[in-house]
Amino acid sequence: MTLDRTTLRWNGWGFAGHQDALAGNERLWRFLADALGVPDLPTTPAVALGDCRIPSSPLSFGDIGPFQAAGCEVASDAADRAFHARGDSYRDLLDLRAGRLDPLPDAIVYPRSAEACRAAVAAAHEGGIAVVPFGGGTSVVGGVSPLRGSHRAVIAIDTTRMNRLLAVDHRSMTATAEAGIYGPDLENALNAEGVMLGHFPQSFEFSTLGGWIAARGAGQQSNRYGKAEHWLVSARLATPAGGWSTEGFPASAAGARLTDLVAGSEGTLGIITDATFAVHRRPTARDYRAYLFKSFEAGREAVRAIVQAEVPAATLRLSDESETHFFGALGRLQGPEKFGHRVQDAYLKLRGLGGDKCAMIAGVEGDAELVAYGRSRMASIASAHGGLGVGAAPADKWFKGRFHGPYLRDPLMDRGLGVDTLETATSWSNVPRLYDAVRSALMDAMAAQSGIAGGRGICLAHISHSYADGASLYFTYVWPRARGGLDAEIAQWEAIKSAASDAIAAHGGTISHHHGAGADHARWMAAEKGALSMDILRATKRTLDPKGIMNPGKLGL
Amino acid sequence: MTLDRTTLRWNGWGFAGHQDALAGNERLWRFLADALGVPDLPTTPAVALGDCRIPSSPLSFGDIGPFQAAGCEVASDAADRAFHARGDSYRDLLDLRAGRLDPLPDAIVYPRSAEACRAAVAAAHEGGIAVVPFGGGTSVVGGVSPLRGSHRAVIAIDTTRMNRLLAVDHRSMTATAEAGIYGPDLENALNAEGVMLGHFPQSFEFSTLGGWIAARGAGQQSNRYGKAEHWLVSARLATPAGGWSTEGFPASAAGARLTDLVAGSEGTLGIITDATFAVHRRPTARDYRAYLFKSFEAGREAVRAIVQAEVPAATLRLSDESETHFFGALGRLQGPEKFGHRVQDAYLKLRGLGGDKCAMIAGVEGDAELVAYGRSRMASIASAHGGLGVGAAPADKWFKGRFHGPYLRDPLMDRGLGVDTLETATSWSNVPRLYDAVRSALMDAMAAQSGIAGGRGICLAHISHSYADGASLYFTYVWPRARGGLDAEIAQWEAIKSAASDAIAAHGGTISHHHGAGADHARWMAAEKGALSMDILRATKRTLDPKGIMNPGKLGL
Repeated sequence: MTLDRTTLRWNGWGFAGHQDALAGNERLWRFLADALGVPDLPTTPAVALGDCRIPSSPLSFGDIGPFQAAGCEVASDAADRAFHARGDSYRDLLDLRAGRLDPLPDAIVYPRSAEACRAAVAAAHEGGIAVVPFGGGTSVVGGVSPLRGSHRAVIAIDTTRMNRLLAVDHRSMTATAEAGIYGPDLENALNAEGVMLGHFPQSFEFSTLGGWIAARGAGQQSNRYGKAEHWLVSARLATPAGGWSTEGFPASAAGARLTDLVAGSEGTLGIITDATFAVHRRPTARDYRAYLFKSFEAGREAVRAIVQAEVPAATLRLSDESETHFFGALGRLQGPEKFGHRVQDAYLKLRGLGGDKCAMIAGVEGDAELVAYGRSRMASIASAHGGLGVGAAPADKWFKGRFHGPYLRDPLMDRGLGVDTLETATSWSNVPRLYDAVRSALMDAMAAQSGIAGGRGICLAHISHSYADGASLYFTYVWPRARGGLDAEIAQWEAIKSAASDAIAAHGGTISHHHGAGADHARWMAAEKGALSMDILRATKRTLDPKGIMNPGKLGL
Repeated sequence: MTLDRTTLRWNGWGFAGHQDALAGNERLWRFLADALGVPDLPTTPAVALGDCRIPSSPLSFGDIGPFQAAGCEVASDAADRAFHARGDSYRDLLDLRAGRLDPLPDAIVYPRSAEACRAAVAAAHEGGIAVVPFGGGTSVVGGVSPLRGSHRAVIAIDTTRMNRLLAVDHRSMTATAEAGIYGPDLENALNAEGVMLGHFPQSFEFSTLGGWIAARGAGQQSNRYGKAEHWLVSARLATPAGGWSTEGFPASAAGARLTDLVAGSEGTLGIITDATFAVHRRPTARDYRAYLFKSFEAGREAVRAIVQAEVPAATLRLSDESETHFFGALGRLQGPEKFGHRVQDAYLKLRGLGGDKCAMIAGVEGDAELVAYGRSRMASIASAHGGLGVGAAPADKWFKGRFHGPYLRDPLMDRGLGVDTLETATSWSNVPRLYDAVRSALMDAMAAQSGIAGGRGICLAHISHSYADGASLYFTYVWPRARGGLDAEIAQWEAIKSAASDAIAAHGGTISHHHGAGADHARWMAAEKGALSMDILRATKRTLDPKGIMNPGKLGL
């Protein structure tokens, strides 16, 4: 484990030492209170770990013995159990910050190799103990909640000590690594070989290869490097039925490709021990720049035209009017009021880009010829859709801060605010309808749940992953937290989340584009897949996990 | 059914009226006899349909009633049963040409809609009758053989009257069509809407959308338009457990994508009734040209460099030394000896391109900017690998004749020759090893099986589908047929086919890149997938087809 877990927050995002960008900025808190229609923002600190009740583990030495015999370290101290008690969703943080840690994993098992991992899963199968596969633990959909199912105990098998890059095939441009390797370690090891994977989710620093695959994750350059299911070539899993290896061909017609069942399995079939994936040469050229459009619709049409013309974009990130406005305001609130801002606003208004304008970050990277071709085509398509190029500076700013968004949640939660994100995807022809429906559902539910007359939420959205046939929609929303204690806060979150999820289901979206299904999306996933598809997933699970010990309660399996 | 089946050969390829390009060309037959080390090529005509024994159908009016009640036409005449007796493999043609039609389907059921198809499958499930889903019937791996399994009867459900284009979504660039639509009808209907699918397998004229998906097929422009599993967005199937619809999102993280299980299901789970797939704007520009390389290795490296540089090629087809030489010779044998040929040879030899040269067809199509970019990059990469551009003429010739290859098989079989093809795929780093192994296995087995001292086979190979991580290898091989009757011919074919398939399995190839597994590849597929993966496929099948009526004996399920 190259990332020292003691440097991480157990009940919040990322490094404990990360500087709070919002601290002491009362102008900003005032702006937020006004936007949310509340008179003030209370102080709502988290409970310290020492003040949390940690029930003792029910596991005996006899239970733990087989895991140690398998060569695994076994931990059951309070700090480790607390770290593995939840993922990183808002719902998880409500529990953790209130000190409600139960359920907790009864022990944490650390295999150092695929072989040890297979032995650990076999021991759990033998012992009738539920297993939560745990990589970085950054799930935002309840994917690592230590649910026992019908079993007598539950352990987390933490993969982060299986963290070696095993091979790079420079001719085939693939690499093989153990699944518990963290993002930066993996990219650094690949970079040393002259290649890269290019999977940069917002959780990049704190999440692992195996987690990306298990949850069908997507990075911020997924237009170029692909979503996990696209770059995954083959995987090996430790399952209760034994070691399972999937196909590793560039393409095949020898029946269905079962590697596709690994992506999205979320630990319900077994633990991914290592995987082979596509790599790329490190880019020798890159061009990231920003454009402004007169409306979200105009920007959407530009994104659609770019991907449908097969322009090799790496990133196309289009913010809606609210997100563009909000981040513009946020940026200005972090410095003094400037004369330059007013001049800028006046110029943009002259160009027809007033309050409704939308910002797009358009990035291309690769070799010089590809970048020249991509940049030129993106510029001409953006221009044809009324886009105004505003240079590289806003794109550079976004790029530099692209992993920092989740850090904002902790200070917001310290000031009585709820903040969550959700995302979906649909066909281009359905994107406008789905966008309107989800945004309305969120705004209505946040207002209804604000608990204050005139109270309301803020809803920001963007398109960050696009395909020839459709795109994802990502929503960030902030609301005044209920003031009746943890259960009231949970009920409030559930009401808002359910309203949005119901709107997604009713308007042709998938319940998740890249966060996964976990426990939180299970019921919408079941409806989305349909009864026969769920029967197939259950039959697959029974084949590999006959006792149902693997990550109970996730995906509705 | 827009393709009139009475115009097709029941025991050979394509249209009965297609002109035999080899007829009466004794120079060519002499060339082949010499190449194969045999003194002469006997005349070995096929048995006429009227001379074949056709056992009567065991089905009663009571058996057929439910299919008619479902709104399906039911046929059991000799011609229709003979047409549905086999696919189009060499092994199939041996049977058909010798008049050994048993086993035959006991009836042919023609649904005209998805609803009727679901009712027909339900009736078969109820009646305990095995079902062979039959589209164009061009399987070359025994995919439509009417095997009963443990059931009392077997019918073919012919999908070709479910042949409508249902919808085109111009914004999302997808279309939905019934699965029994033939290639030309589908492209014509799409073209009328200004779009195209771009799936052009050699069987394009005689195969259907559903068959392409079921077998994970690939077209000759798959580098651009994708293999079936890449362009498939969603499918609906008629299964014994009921109608099954799969996900239709551009991407999703709501569990595994079960659409991926439809591609490659080969009728074992149910009948694909309709599917949604990606479409493209019709190209406004295209550039197909040929290059010559000093060796297969040099050409391979050029293909690898082109795909790994993400150049948007539509076709990259590289023939090995034998194929380049053979088709060059074939072309010259179809006209008079010309002085120009000798000049050409002398010039190429001067450029270092002697007898070992390899030809590549490189095509790019799309809009003008994409074509300009692709052409320029391909030219510079080819040149960097020693490739000599030889203009558009050879590429045009290939393009015009690109569906005609299979027609050569019938006249070859009329002259005592066996001819078959097989294909595989592997990673780039393994391509040379796999190529050598399969070629050697084929040459050794054909020589051993020639039955004549000095007798040998011809083996031609090409790369026609390439990916960043690897490529397909396609082998065409010709040998002197055994002269001891049908059983001897079958044993000879099996010995050659097994030798090649064992070599593929032993050297890291998949048993098929795009032909499918059918009955012929079932045992290699099972070994390739491994026991747990086969258990998953069986569990999936049991979920949708609990009695095992769907295409028994295929995929080893």
